[in-house]
Amino acid sequence: MSAEAHHLHRNAEPLLDARLFPADFGNLTVKVERLAKRLAATAIERDKRGGHARAERELIRDSGLLSLAIPQRFDGQERTWPEIYRIIRHLAAADSSLAHLLAFNHLQVATILLYGSAEQQRHWLQRSVQERWFWGNATNGRDLGLKLSAREEHHELNGRKSFCSGALGADALVVSAPRSHSAADRVFLVLPAQREGLAVNDDWDAFGQRQTDSGTVQFENVFVDRDELLLSGGQSPRSSLRVCLSQLILTQLYLGNIQGALDGALRYTREQARPWIGANVATSGEDPFIQKRYGELWLQYRSALLLAEHAAERLQQAWEKPALGAAERGDVALLIAEARVTSARAALDITAQVFEALGARSTASHYGFDRFWRNVRVHTLHDPLDYKVRDIGNWVINGVPPTPSLYS
Amino acid sequence: MSAEAHHLHRNAEPLLDARLFPADFGNLTVKVERLAKRLAATAIERDKRGGHARAERELIRDSGLLSLAIPQRFDGQERTWPEIYRIIRHLAAADSSLAHLLAFNHLQVATILLYGSAEQQRHWLQRSVQERWFWGNATNGRDLGLKLSAREEHHELNGRKSFCSGALGADALVVSAPRSHSAADRVFLVLPAQREGLAVNDDWDAFGQRQTDSGTVQFENVFVDRDELLLSGGQSPRSSLRVCLSQLILTQLYLGNIQGALDGALRYTREQARPWIGANVATSGEDPFIQKRYGELWLQYRSALLLAEHAAERLQQAWEKPALGAAERGDVALLIAEARVTSARAALDITAQVFEALGARSTASHYGFDRFWRNVRVHTLHDPLDYKVRDIGNWVINGVPPTPSLYS
Amino acid sequence: MSAEAHHLHRNAEPLLDARLFPADFGNLTVKVERLAKRLAATAIERDKRGGHARAERELIRDSGLLSLAIPQRFDGQERTWPEIYRIIRHLAAADSSLAHLLAFNHLQVATILLYGSAEQQRHWLQRSVQERWFWGNATNGRDLGLKLSAREEHHELNGRKSFCSGALGADALVVSAPRSHSAADRVFLVLPAQREGLAVNDDWDAFGQRQTDSGTVQFENVFVDRDELLLSGGQSPRSSLRVCLSQLILTQLYLGNIQGALDGALRYTREQARPWIGANVATSGEDPFIQKRYGELWLQYRSALLLAEHAAERLQQAWEKPALGAAERGDVALLIAEARVTSARAALDITAQVFEALGARSTASHYGFDRFWRNVRVHTLHDPLDYKVRDIGNWVINGVPPTPSLYS
Amino acid sequence: MSAEAHHLHRNAEPLLDARLFPADFGNLTVKVERLAKRLAATAIERDKRGGHARAERELIRDSGLLSLAIPQRFDGQERTWPEIYRIIRHLAAADSSLAHLLAFNHLQVATILLYGSAEQQRHWLQRSVQERWFWGNATNGRDLGLKLSAREEHHELNGRKSFCSGALGADALVVSAPRSHSAADRVFLVLPAQREGLAVNDDWDAFGQRQTDSGTVQFENVFVDRDELLLSGGQSPRSSLRVCLSQLILTQLYLGNIQGALDGALRYTREQARPWIGANVATSGEDPFIQKRYGELWLQYRSALLLAEHAAERLQQAWEKPALGAAERGDVALLIAEARVTSARAALDITAQVFEALGARSTASHYGFDRFWRNVRVHTLHDPLDYKVRDIGNWVINGVPPTPSLYS
Repeated sequence: MSAEAHHLHRNAEPLLDARLFPADFGNLTVKVERLAKRLAATAIERDKRGGHARAERELIRDSGLLSLAIPQRFDGQERTWPEIYRIIRHLAAADSSLAHLLAFNHLQVATILLYGSAEQQRHWLQRSVQERWFWGNATNGRDLGLKLSAREEHHELNGRKSFCSGALGADALVVSAPRSHSAADRVFLVLPAQREGLAVNDDWDAFGQRQTDSGTVQFENVFVDRDELLLSGGQSPRSSLRVCLSQLILTQLYLGNIQGALDGALRYTREQARPWIGANVATSGEDPFIQKRYGELWLQYRSALLLAEHAAERLQQAWEKPALGAAERGDVALLIAEARVTSARAALDITAQVFEALGARSTASHYGFDRFWRNVRVHTLHDPLDYKVRDIGNWVINGVPPTPSLYS
Repeated sequence: MSAEAHHLHRNAEPLLDARLFPADFGNLTVKVERLAKRLAATAIERDKRGGHARAERELIRDSGLLSLAIPQRFDGQERTWPEIYRIIRHLAAADSSLAHLLAFNHLQVATILLYGSAEQQRHWLQRSVQERWFWGNATNGRDLGLKLSAREEHHELNGRKSFCSGALGADALVVSAPRSHSAADRVFLVLPAQREGLAVNDDWDAFGQRQTDSGTVQFENVFVDRDELLLSGGQSPRSSLRVCLSQLILTQLYLGNIQGALDGALRYTREQARPWIGANVATSGEDPFIQKRYGELWLQYRSALLLAEHAAERLQQAWEKPALGAAERGDVALLIAEARVTSARAALDITAQVFEALGARSTASHYGFDRFWRNVRVHTLHDPLDYKVRDIGNWVINGVPPTPSLYS
Repeated sequence: MSAEAHHLHRNAEPLLDARLFPADFGNLTVKVERLAKRLAATAIERDKRGGHARAERELIRDSGLLSLAIPQRFDGQERTWPEIYRIIRHLAAADSSLAHLLAFNHLQVATILLYGSAEQQRHWLQRSVQERWFWGNATNGRDLGLKLSAREEHHELNGRKSFCSGALGADALVVSAPRSHSAADRVFLVLPAQREGLAVNDDWDAFGQRQTDSGTVQFENVFVDRDELLLSGGQSPRSSLRVCLSQLILTQLYLGNIQGALDGALRYTREQARPWIGANVATSGEDPFIQKRYGELWLQYRSALLLAEHAAERLQQAWEKPALGAAERGDVALLIAEARVTSARAALDITAQVFEALGARSTASHYGFDRFWRNVRVHTLHDPLDYKVRDIGNWVINGVPPTPSLYS
Repeated sequence: MSAEAHHLHRNAEPLLDARLFPADFGNLTVKVERLAKRLAATAIERDKRGGHARAERELIRDSGLLSLAIPQRFDGQERTWPEIYRIIRHLAAADSSLAHLLAFNHLQVATILLYGSAEQQRHWLQRSVQERWFWGNATNGRDLGLKLSAREEHHELNGRKSFCSGALGADALVVSAPRSHSAADRVFLVLPAQREGLAVNDDWDAFGQRQTDSGTVQFENVFVDRDELLLSGGQSPRSSLRVCLSQLILTQLYLGNIQGALDGALRYTREQARPWIGANVATSGEDPFIQKRYGELWLQYRSALLLAEHAAERLQQAWEKPALGAAERGDVALLIAEARVTSARAALDITAQVFEALGARSTASHYGFDRFWRNVRVHTLHDPLDYKVRDIGNWVINGVPPTPSLYS
């Protein structure tokens, strides 16, 4: 990292401009802030390098944040989803790859809570807390290349799963396998990562979200104990909240990248940018077009933020209902679709347009300002936004909520 | 009104699609809904005609909604601003001119509460309740053509004020006059509309918001009693909430027009639109591009709505603080600027773009679907959005909140 | 028309700012300019009134411009389509309803040239010139409510056609009737407007393009002579240029409205607009945001203009080829689709956004500045733009040009 | 380069889809196409690596394209600017860094033609042809850190210039130095790159346009012969065409990146993309939203392309006038501003949005699809577009063309 870029971060107290991006996480504030700063210190460099971030995963483990979603009855911290999401968002402003890994750890915990029996929940989640497990996944639903076969007393997995965020370096995995020919009908199961026959490739090399360890997992005659199959959630509206949780994680990562991009840009504008010749102003921050530009970007951010917060609150309410109805699940899914689409677009626009306010010199590699756009560009393609908007429109016109599926 | 258009409204139970636009105003629901339907019954016809809507002003008076903002200690209904705004928004979906008049009635009430002494408040607001007054205004701050001159025991007004929404047909007026050469430094006063020398021209003829009675008020040696000058508010942060209240009224009118436009469009799509040849769908509402279009418009509406609700809550908090600080006033003003700009743009886009989903036949005059755009086009020009966005950007970059002024 | 609005036009020398909108039509310049000014003189008033514009149709007839598209061999003026389009565009800036009628007159002439035998061309077009006919149409292809039945020696028309621009007040009509159950397979025929059993309703009442006389034509046992059927064009690529000609007429009307809106706005900005308080400029035209706004609108206009001119040149080349191939016809159709979509969107944006530069006072009815948006909003719905863009994309991806149809 | 990415290019015959991006350069077609393919073969890899591309500069030298702008009287090829621009654009689709270097070579040639005496032109340009010189520049006008001092018989340069595209590895340089305190008043001079005291840093490291060798040039007591000062152009309208030429080079690079991005995306859509589950189509290219997306991107490209072609034609006309007037120079500058802004925005949008049509797998690094956006994001910041749009608006409103300056 260059001296200039380093300087940007060294002086950052706190990480993000606290006036614009308040970061109050109660008694977790210090932990979160410390982790965020440590991740930020090497984020630009690691973005260039890509690959597995072993040391930074350990920073996360040491932060104590891995058990946020685990209920207190299993010795976890049992934070609400809105709280967890705000933490993810804040970390994503520093390093959205590692924030992704932490968020997906929580998603796997939630999967066990949604699909596992009481006994399975107790077993796996207590152990998670005790052994400070970092969960990864092999649940990409569009990839049908993994086969679960019943043997006499157990099952066996053969094949492969692509795009398995967090699998490399995980202690345990949530895995999904198609139950029938339909992609939406699948069974979840849990596996310790050391299980024989299981191998994780270090083959993720996208131009953004470069350290999400989203490689391919290979399974060769992998033994699955009957107790490892999570069969309690079935296809209930409540268990289908898993997709909702996941979509709202994506949303936080977009918002985190927005915050990181805006914050970095504002520091540059305040400290380094030169006013345009002909603007007749003393500082870049007085240029009327630059003020207006930031105003526009801010408006996009705010719309996305409020939709995301609103969706998270409603998701939490749904989460707390043991017998969630299909209609209410549908409402939550719609609010999350609103938030995800709006934040994805805001993130694409903002991370690209901040440069208009900064000028040519801000494109020097050592600032790493392009990584926000690259992260968002890669991550917003998770599933196509056009179809999500169409789903919203179908509901608006015809009152039909999105069918619970792999992506909605 | 044509048979088709009439049909659109006759079947409207409730006025707006309750699934999309919930309209729960507590024990006021029936009153609001009844007023909204009555206004809607003739809104298209009156939009074409323009001019003064005497009968509909009486419907408003009869609705009992004129005293919503008056404290209970003065025999009013003392609703919170978020409640009042939701009612205005709902009425604006039916008739945004008349909703404007009702909203501005409340703004004048608020002016007395912000600038009047305890005694003035009691005097004018109790009388308002007893005599069911409809308040109008002559406070256009940009128009410096009115002069207040001190006489021995009283004052005198001479000159004119343009753009005086609700003045024609009002029972009483709040008037402002420049105190010095600065437009921002002005004094408010109250006058019964029958005061000698005061005349209201019926000269408002814009292409939208056609029945807001926003004519010119002329003053010729108009007597102003010392007690009629509202001198208690001074230039405090709290009294400057008047502009905030006003800007958030504009916001509700934009949102109301959005709701009206979307609701009318959806009825048309569901009941009358023909699928496009080549779309290969049975109904217009199944067309993927039409679904996507509604999805897009919905997203814009939702962003604007959440920002408006958020701003209203914060405004209410500020309203309730007797000693409001400048910083908090600045925060509220920024949230309101966010809401106003976002809703103005959403309204301009939505009221123009619904037609893409409806097709050529929907442009028949009798449907009156263009009135929403015309209303919004006229009303969003109240003060320029570009400068409001720049103000937001200036705050983002430099931490400078907008100076309390006539428009911020 | 108000004094102010009148003033706007009286001083207009020439009608449009010649620096921005050059209007050189060779030896037709004086005629075109005179007609444009006469139409402009009453355009705002007639827009409010709507209905049939008998006197203005006579102004067009007297202008000598009805025979522009008729070949010299039939005593017409035989101008190229690019020339004719520029004239239509210029007139549309003054009055896009009447420009529409003149353009559709030429479209009917072209229909005879594309579908009629040499003898039919000679007969109808010479007579057109001699008797100074104004052609109208009853060719709305989506309306299948008209039936052509073969009798022993003749045919008979029964039923009705909606949206028949220019039918009311026409001397002769081009009529289309479905040949089979397919909307795309239809036969064209010509009829003098006085033919017994034919009646034109004055029932067009859209909120824009208000004087296009686009009423419903009713046919009751209308006699059609065998010679009146235009059967020579068949379904050749060349005859299908009719749709291309028509789509590029729409394009000119959008561009004309853009020119009218920009020109009116610029006059207002230069002569009447007041600078915004806080802009710290002496005139509105020096405000950086207003300059930028005009710059943005200008860019949209220019893109649309160049695409339209390019498409017109290629259309003319195709027009001049007796044996036009399907591939070249496809290319022309694509260029026209590009021009139509781009100009439609530019027109919607520009006619709505000029107001941002003008401010609230410009919305007074007497200026009539909203008519440009209303014209464009109605007229751009002729057929859905979304599908036209998809057609372009299908060609880009798959190399498939749009199938010649009623709209492409 | 991965097997997949390699495959994309190996099969590319010709480099770009000839149906969409015709590449006819007359008798230069084979040379251009061959160079383009050679550059493309390693472009993705070199984009990752950055730094100086010595071998590829030699490919350019060997292509014979360095003398395109040199008049025939000096043994050059004397192509028109529209021809040269089309070649640059085509090469930029393959490798916009190297296309940039070639284009800036021509710009230096043009500088000698615009500012040099007849004798200087003959001397330097003949030698250029004979010795196959590759010209670089040190003319960044905003950087005032270089000082030209008169000595007795010669001049001396001391200081530095940043952002000197093509300087590293050049045979000769055009250098500018401020003549007075005003940035716009400067003198051009030519220097062989080997001149003592001149050093070029390899310090360019932006995240796009990574091989443009745009490093810093340092001057320490560099001898400048009196004959090396180009003093004939003065401040005439004609010599100020240099900026016009330069701005239209930027435009071609944006358009080239658009072509590269669209072409790569289309290949991927046709050959590799999987249809979205739920789209119910057999191939991605049949998805209505994907078709529409390509349609939208195509429309943006086409608008930009036509404006660029139009501007280039007018620039050529101006170039050919020995006594160019200020007004005509102003017109050309405006057309170029239109083209540059429109193509910059189209390029930013298209290179970001193609991914919506491609999906997540297309973000794998080996495809290198993000390099188009990165190139464009860096290069469009050359000078701020907002001010260019304002200049256009100022001309539209007030008739004032942009003052010839460093950027307009």
